[in-house]
Amino acid sequence: MSVAKSYRFTEELVEVATGRKKADIVIKNGQLVNVYSGEIENADVALKGERIAAVGDVSHTIGGGTRVVDVNGAFIVPGLIDAHMHIESSMLSPVEFAKAVLPWGTTTVFIDPHEMGNVLGMEGIKFFIEQTDGLPLKVFITIPSCVPPVAKFETSGAEIGIREIEEMLEWERVVGLGEMMDFEAVISANREALEKIRRALMAGKVVEGHIPMIRGAKLSAYIAAGVLSCHESTTKEEVLEKVRRGMFTYIREGSAWLDVKECIKAVTEEGISHTFLSLVTDDRDARTIWRNGHMNHVVRRAIEEGLEPIKAIQMATINPALRFGMADELGGIAPFRFADLLVVRKLEDMRPEMVFAKGVLVAKDGKLVVDIPKKPVPPSVLNSVRINRRISADEFVIRSKGEKGVRVIGVDEGSVLTRHLIRRLPISNGIVLPDPSHKILKVAVFERHGRNGSRGLGFVEGFGLRSGAIASTVAHDTHNLIVIGSNDDDMAIAANRVIEMGGGISLVKSGKVLAELPLPIGGLMSDRDVRSVAKSIDTIEKAWRRLGCDMVSPLMTMSLLTLTPIPELRITDRGLFDSKRFEPVDLFVD
Amino acid sequence: MSVAKSYRFTEELVEVATGRKKADIVIKNGQLVNVYSGEIENADVALKGERIAAVGDVSHTIGGGTRVVDVNGAFIVPGLIDAHMHIESSMLSPVEFAKAVLPWGTTTVFIDPHEMGNVLGMEGIKFFIEQTDGLPLKVFITIPSCVPPVAKFETSGAEIGIREIEEMLEWERVVGLGEMMDFEAVISANREALEKIRRALMAGKVVEGHIPMIRGAKLSAYIAAGVLSCHESTTKEEVLEKVRRGMFTYIREGSAWLDVKECIKAVTEEGISHTFLSLVTDDRDARTIWRNGHMNHVVRRAIEEGLEPIKAIQMATINPALRFGMADELGGIAPFRFADLLVVRKLEDMRPEMVFAKGVLVAKDGKLVVDIPKKPVPPSVLNSVRINRRISADEFVIRSKGEKGVRVIGVDEGSVLTRHLIRRLPISNGIVLPDPSHKILKVAVFERHGRNGSRGLGFVEGFGLRSGAIASTVAHDTHNLIVIGSNDDDMAIAANRVIEMGGGISLVKSGKVLAELPLPIGGLMSDRDVRSVAKSIDTIEKAWRRLGCDMVSPLMTMSLLTLTPIPELRITDRGLFDSKRFEPVDLFVD
Repeated sequence: MSVAKSYRFTEELVEVATGRKKADIVIKNGQLVNVYSGEIENADVALKGERIAAVGDVSHTIGGGTRVVDVNGAFIVPGLIDAHMHIESSMLSPVEFAKAVLPWGTTTVFIDPHEMGNVLGMEGIKFFIEQTDGLPLKVFITIPSCVPPVAKFETSGAEIGIREIEEMLEWERVVGLGEMMDFEAVISANREALEKIRRALMAGKVVEGHIPMIRGAKLSAYIAAGVLSCHESTTKEEVLEKVRRGMFTYIREGSAWLDVKECIKAVTEEGISHTFLSLVTDDRDARTIWRNGHMNHVVRRAIEEGLEPIKAIQMATINPALRFGMADELGGIAPFRFADLLVVRKLEDMRPEMVFAKGVLVAKDGKLVVDIPKKPVPPSVLNSVRINRRISADEFVIRSKGEKGVRVIGVDEGSVLTRHLIRRLPISNGIVLPDPSHKILKVAVFERHGRNGSRGLGFVEGFGLRSGAIASTVAHDTHNLIVIGSNDDDMAIAANRVIEMGGGISLVKSGKVLAELPLPIGGLMSDRDVRSVAKSIDTIEKAWRRLGCDMVSPLMTMSLLTLTPIPELRITDRGLFDSKRFEPVDLFVD
Repeated sequence: MSVAKSYRFTEELVEVATGRKKADIVIKNGQLVNVYSGEIENADVALKGERIAAVGDVSHTIGGGTRVVDVNGAFIVPGLIDAHMHIESSMLSPVEFAKAVLPWGTTTVFIDPHEMGNVLGMEGIKFFIEQTDGLPLKVFITIPSCVPPVAKFETSGAEIGIREIEEMLEWERVVGLGEMMDFEAVISANREALEKIRRALMAGKVVEGHIPMIRGAKLSAYIAAGVLSCHESTTKEEVLEKVRRGMFTYIREGSAWLDVKECIKAVTEEGISHTFLSLVTDDRDARTIWRNGHMNHVVRRAIEEGLEPIKAIQMATINPALRFGMADELGGIAPFRFADLLVVRKLEDMRPEMVFAKGVLVAKDGKLVVDIPKKPVPPSVLNSVRINRRISADEFVIRSKGEKGVRVIGVDEGSVLTRHLIRRLPISNGIVLPDPSHKILKVAVFERHGRNGSRGLGFVEGFGLRSGAIASTVAHDTHNLIVIGSNDDDMAIAANRVIEMGGGISLVKSGKVLAELPLPIGGLMSDRDVRSVAKSIDTIEKAWRRLGCDMVSPLMTMSLLTLTPIPELRITDRGLFDSKRFEPVDLFVD
């Protein structure tokens, strides 16, 4: 598909390539990582405007006005592409996100803005298109396909149906339909699900998938519907099967789940072709970006696990470009392509000394060197927490029904999956209590879009909190208000604090706020920069630890307790949901 | 891009994949050539309608009405794709072409109908779209970009300008702009050339290239214009450079030029990534197809030259599908994809025992087993030889001008290139004569589209004819009437015979017709089947040999004497053309 709006620039590129006009920038003495041929090549690069005019010996393109950048033997790597991610997970506004990832060498992202879609519907998608217009970071959009993810069992702020999808498929920079999380609907040939897919296919666009742990006949059925990618593999076997069945398979390294180690073995151990494999971040928060990097970190991780650097780079550049039919314009260093590239001293550590995006030097030594102005945030995306009352501690009380056991959501560090546990919990005065000494806390989800005021209650095992409570409006994908805690009083205080902030995260112990992070944009994103948000996340995690939790990225893990499309047990504003059988289940086991 | 008109079939595919409905056909006990993972895999395949529903263990899709095909350990290979070719070169009508190549396993072709475009303009393109509609062979079209190839220096039957290109880009199955042969125009930033390219890019379509022997800065310039493929490499070095510069590089094995041997070394010797490489036929006549096969033969040749079979197959299946942004629907054996596949006992010989196209068994053991009805040929494409007079022997006479030498076109067996030679030729009574004893013949080109009656005369070295003459309306790309011969009388007789037939080929010796092939469709294609046309070509070549020529495919070589976009020296209806400097040159050297 066309990436540019016009192609008037080709004339100038041709003039520069032949030397009749001169380049804006020439990068010389580099070792070019050639993702087309799979080689390291000694070649110079001539840039004109947003694009590359010539590669090889480009000395004839150097004129008086040409800026010559001698990289002195460093590697020149194509701008990194993230084939699947959600900006909302960074907790940064789109502009701050761009400022955060460009210094790490990410120059193109394919986003699925389904968090904002769940909160604000089409308004949320439009927000991303407007906020990312004209950025040095190229942002392509897939239309959220499952808003809400599982319609009957949770409440979102808006619904996105076939009519809305059809309309948005025509919007600029929209490349397809976003991850079809309701895979059961697809496999059962649900008419609406298939119709959404068909509309995207008929518009000539791709359909992105999401199908964790499903194998064999069901996987074939999902693909047969026209859903051709997946980023949910957590084992080598899953990767192998998905690639064999013709899926563009994305290997993920987010904040809370770290799939590279296992999944990359499909190449390093089994030696399969890697053209249908790409690396992605999916969900990566501001702190992980600030500390570890972005796509460069995923590439580094793949190399650490034994993948050849050139293959790892191909999986973050030309492979995603091929997947989206954009290899003519993106994903490699060659004439006509966008002048997106990074200068890296060692491929193994993938730390860019320089990053060029659309022909402009945007970052040096990890620091942004261009001014990317803030964009005004429209009022329509603010004040999205619509709970017009104070929540009381009574609302958290769970009364015993003489049950044999209680269903408990089990969480594991670094995994997107949860476990469906049955536990016996202490009962006092007919009230079922959490059991912090066995790492079991209470969890509550309050509908926060001002639609029905519903509430779900349950228990979660694994966070290791001994006291206090945490409340947050980041709770995938409908982003209701989630609260976990050891006692009802702190839970109510934390919840009310988040409501006061208009969205965000709050940690409370013994009635006192320990840490907080306001997220005014849709209750999901801050308006502050990456460093500041990373610091807040740090403060919050330190507070988690003070409460007794030693998990890596507990916030991310907490935010997924509500994620209905992923096995095994989840909680929504309507109660517990068995996400393996795709049906609601009772809290109590008789 | 979307390949289907609708995607209503997905529901049925999902139902079959899950086993709720049953497959039409199940192919079992095969070794699947998995082009996604690059492996050979034991997997069965379930077909429903035109598509594949499931792969792997598909036993649950077998019902009472399912036809189970046990292939008993044979290989199951995806239907072969030809990324660049001209049906006209087969001399077969589109329907007869489809009947000829399906038994060899070619199930998809990307054609550039520029021969018919040169003769009949948009009418010629429409002819292909209409004639290929609904065939089991999938035919995608690129719009001829250079009709005529070099406007000022040759006469075609029609011109295709920006307005026509813009209109045709919207036609069904049109995927891009065809090979931009006038590479000098592109490199010199000619406005019209760049505008044609831009229109295709803005329509979201690809632009195909053609740039033989050009390297370095000029190659960068050509690519910088947005032309992203080339099928004209004849050396390993050219292939390496084109891939490195981000071109989708096609390696060709036609009838008259055989590039696989040299070009495949880019992979077998240099070990570059092969994702940007595809195999193509470009120009392959009925006899080569009948004798050797089609894409299966190109794959076999690559394997013979030492390429791993799986890579050779990837280069004829998934790689071209990726190039055209169609890998979601074509190029591999996986759910949702077209049920295009062949059953092959040995990968090394690539002889299909069975061929399925769009879910139908179309061929067995090299024989078509379905009825593909002839389509009526519209009168508009017949009677295209518009020379309304008898040509006399006088018209071939070349008078000496006291020159030091004469420019002679040198031809080499199996090469698309010609050489620019200077020779001293015998003169008798002030008339320059051919010199058959030194393999030098006379060549003449008559404008045949009824536009200006112009005529070009010259000499050619290399055919080895001792006597007689050959005339043909197949003369790339403007397809004027070309005649070569040892004497003017036979040349006139051969030319007049072709005019009488309404187009075709005629061989004459001492006033007698030795062999002929009528080509009534545009003066380029027969209405007979592959076997019959192959036999005629055979008879014609035997006649060539009786005249003293022992070249392989002399007809194809002769038809390229007029091909202005390829170095070094060519002849048109306006005279000699230096196709290296891109300017006309005089016959005589002073």
